[in-house]
Amino acid sequence: MHFTSQDTATSGSRTPLRKMIDPDGPHLERLILLSDGVFAIAMTLLALEIHGPEHWNGDGRALALALGPALVAYVTAFAVLAITWQTHRHTLALFERIDGVATGLNLALLAVVAVLPPVMRFTLESSIGLGLKGFEIAIWVYGGTIAALGVLQMLLWGWAALIGGLMKPYVPKAYRRNYFFRWLFANLSLFPLLNCG
Amino acid sequence: MHFTSQDTATSGSRTPLRKMIDPDGPHLERLILLSDGVFAIAMTLLALEIHGPEHWNGDGRALALALGPALVAYVTAFAVLAITWQTHRHTLALFERIDGVATGLNLALLAVVAVLPPVMRFTLESSIGLGLKGFEIAIWVYGGTIAALGVLQMLLWGWAALIGGLMKPYVPKAYRRNYFFRWLFANLSLFPLLNCG
Amino acid sequence: MHFTSQDTATSGSRTPLRKMIDPDGPHLERLILLSDGVFAIAMTLLALEIHGPEHWNGDGRALALALGPALVAYVTAFAVLAITWQTHRHTLALFERIDGVATGLNLALLAVVAVLPPVMRFTLESSIGLGLKGFEIAIWVYGGTIAALGVLQMLLWGWAALIGGLMKPYVPKAYRRNYFFRWLFANLSLFPLLNCG
Amino acid sequence: MHFTSQDTATSGSRTPLRKMIDPDGPHLERLILLSDGVFAIAMTLLALEIHGPEHWNGDGRALALALGPALVAYVTAFAVLAITWQTHRHTLALFERIDGVATGLNLALLAVVAVLPPVMRFTLESSIGLGLKGFEIAIWVYGGTIAALGVLQMLLWGWAALIGGLMKPYVPKAYRRNYFFRWLFANLSLFPLLNCG
Repeated sequence: MHFTSQDTATSGSRTPLRKMIDPDGPHLERLILLSDGVFAIAMTLLALEIHGPEHWNGDGRALALALGPALVAYVTAFAVLAITWQTHRHTLALFERIDGVATGLNLALLAVVAVLPPVMRFTLESSIGLGLKGFEIAIWVYGGTIAALGVLQMLLWGWAALIGGLMKPYVPKAYRRNYFFRWLFANLSLFPLLNCG
Repeated sequence: MHFTSQDTATSGSRTPLRKMIDPDGPHLERLILLSDGVFAIAMTLLALEIHGPEHWNGDGRALALALGPALVAYVTAFAVLAITWQTHRHTLALFERIDGVATGLNLALLAVVAVLPPVMRFTLESSIGLGLKGFEIAIWVYGGTIAALGVLQMLLWGWAALIGGLMKPYVPKAYRRNYFFRWLFANLSLFPLLNCG
Repeated sequence: MHFTSQDTATSGSRTPLRKMIDPDGPHLERLILLSDGVFAIAMTLLALEIHGPEHWNGDGRALALALGPALVAYVTAFAVLAITWQTHRHTLALFERIDGVATGLNLALLAVVAVLPPVMRFTLESSIGLGLKGFEIAIWVYGGTIAALGVLQMLLWGWAALIGGLMKPYVPKAYRRNYFFRWLFANLSLFPLLNCG
Repeated sequence: MHFTSQDTATSGSRTPLRKMIDPDGPHLERLILLSDGVFAIAMTLLALEIHGPEHWNGDGRALALALGPALVAYVTAFAVLAITWQTHRHTLALFERIDGVATGLNLALLAVVAVLPPVMRFTLESSIGLGLKGFEIAIWVYGGTIAALGVLQMLLWGWAALIGGLMKPYVPKAYRRNYFFRWLFANLSLFPLLNCG
């Protein structure tokens, strides 16, 4: 799938062939198509975890007690995905091209995004079934997933803006650095929170 | 994720940098990609709630009795999503650019769109299992979801057309106002209906 | 959502305003985005109905007996969706613009596409659980769904090519007519098949 | 859906009409939209198979024992889809146009991609419920699915690059051949592995 010097030997010089058969434009576009698809599906699957009470007898209060935690969990998880998507949109709008490392980091980010619906279901089930103890472990799992989202977004930005040179040249150096360090601090500040959980 | 004066200080003037690193074109495109994804998934998940009768013995009449309400609920809910999508398509086709408020309102709209499949399932289960009383509460939940769709579409239009200045300049002022007030009246007229339900 | 003479009165002449605020290009594009989303999801959901045998004890023959009918049903239903998608792609590639009627017919087509996964599940369950009698009814339901796909595609083509004038002007008249009549004959020839079922 | 000499007779010459009413650009674009949709959904559905332990009592070790195999299966299957998607992106970025054979091969590839979530679920259930014997059969099913992905990608490349003439003319002949043979060797080397399984 990737080029070795052997392949490119057939055309004489390495760079032109790579340019020709690995065009950056469509590669970036398709990564965006795939990402928006995964975000859209994960957002919609979150809502499927909202259930009314089992064996409901029509009691309004039982309905509110069942729907309340589910709605809170849904709104929270949807907000996490919405913010992640906005950051992703902001980051990729600054990309001029894409390479294998950024594609890999982006796919890893999508793998964590896809995990959010079962994580939300698990959090909800544990909190309801196990009280405080289940809630503690569930918060740990939930927090770990959010931390993974944060770390992967930081790595994607760091690679694209500071190392791989994938960003549009007009993005100022200070902005590239500041944005990366803000992510770093945000991620570091999440760790003590997880310890308390 | 958003810019503070500190970041933009590095380039001297605020507006040019914002323009450079927050390009409107791709941001609007990706919001449309995400929205169409959520609409498509919600539409398809609605159909999954159509079940034949449990422990079916091959009786045609039992099949019709089970499929009838499910099909009515499916067609109704699909029509709600189809109309919401058409309005969304009409609204966003008039956008020239997008900002954070409109993105947030659009994401909130998507959060309600994603909720429609479980709401339809709940309405269907309550009506079948609880008779008139369950039907009343279910209609309230269903109506509330549709009202939320209406209010969010009104706010999205109002912000884009009247306050935020996001629409293409050639959209006439009278049309912007009339369209907003039509939404307002439609939403207000839904409230007494909910009270009766 | 649609324009009345009252709205357009503000700009004097009806047609220019409609042209301005109902641009055909993006409307057609978004219909394609939504359609491809629904097709993709329906195709993927079909596969979810493939189950191994319940309480499987590791016996290879029991596995083949359980997977066999499910795989046949999956391949058949996937082929139906794939052919419908190819026809849809062919039809919409000839569109120059889109109007409300074609949008409505396309949304109705999507509503039937979304129904195919539960229809396939029902066919499969009935055939396994009820033997010949369940198989007969299931074939009727399945055939009815395929017939609905055919009729809607015929109506979409008929409206766009013969009445609404939505197609690119270079599509020859004879081709428009022939294609429509081929659909008509195909749909009519399906009815006796359903009667035998 | 496809043209016969009878249809094209109406316009006199065959090739120009085909060119006019079967434009390659949009056809390739829509195949990419559909493919990215199916890949995105299959990736997200994989995650839904990750469950916590049933009747969980809050024990951390029971949680790890239940999540461990599920996470390994998820990461493996996600990686299979991610690599398949990257190959697909690489292949289709070199396409200049698309024909019926390549569309058919691509749709068959999507049919196998959609099957991966139930295959992963089956592998997981068999390994847990049946020990070594279930694991053996499951590996066979899993390996067969991956082999099918490999064979279809090889055929798609072979048709487009060596026979159908669908690729951009600047893709060197040696690269077309080498890439095909690398797929062929990879697929052939998978067979003995399956025999051992």
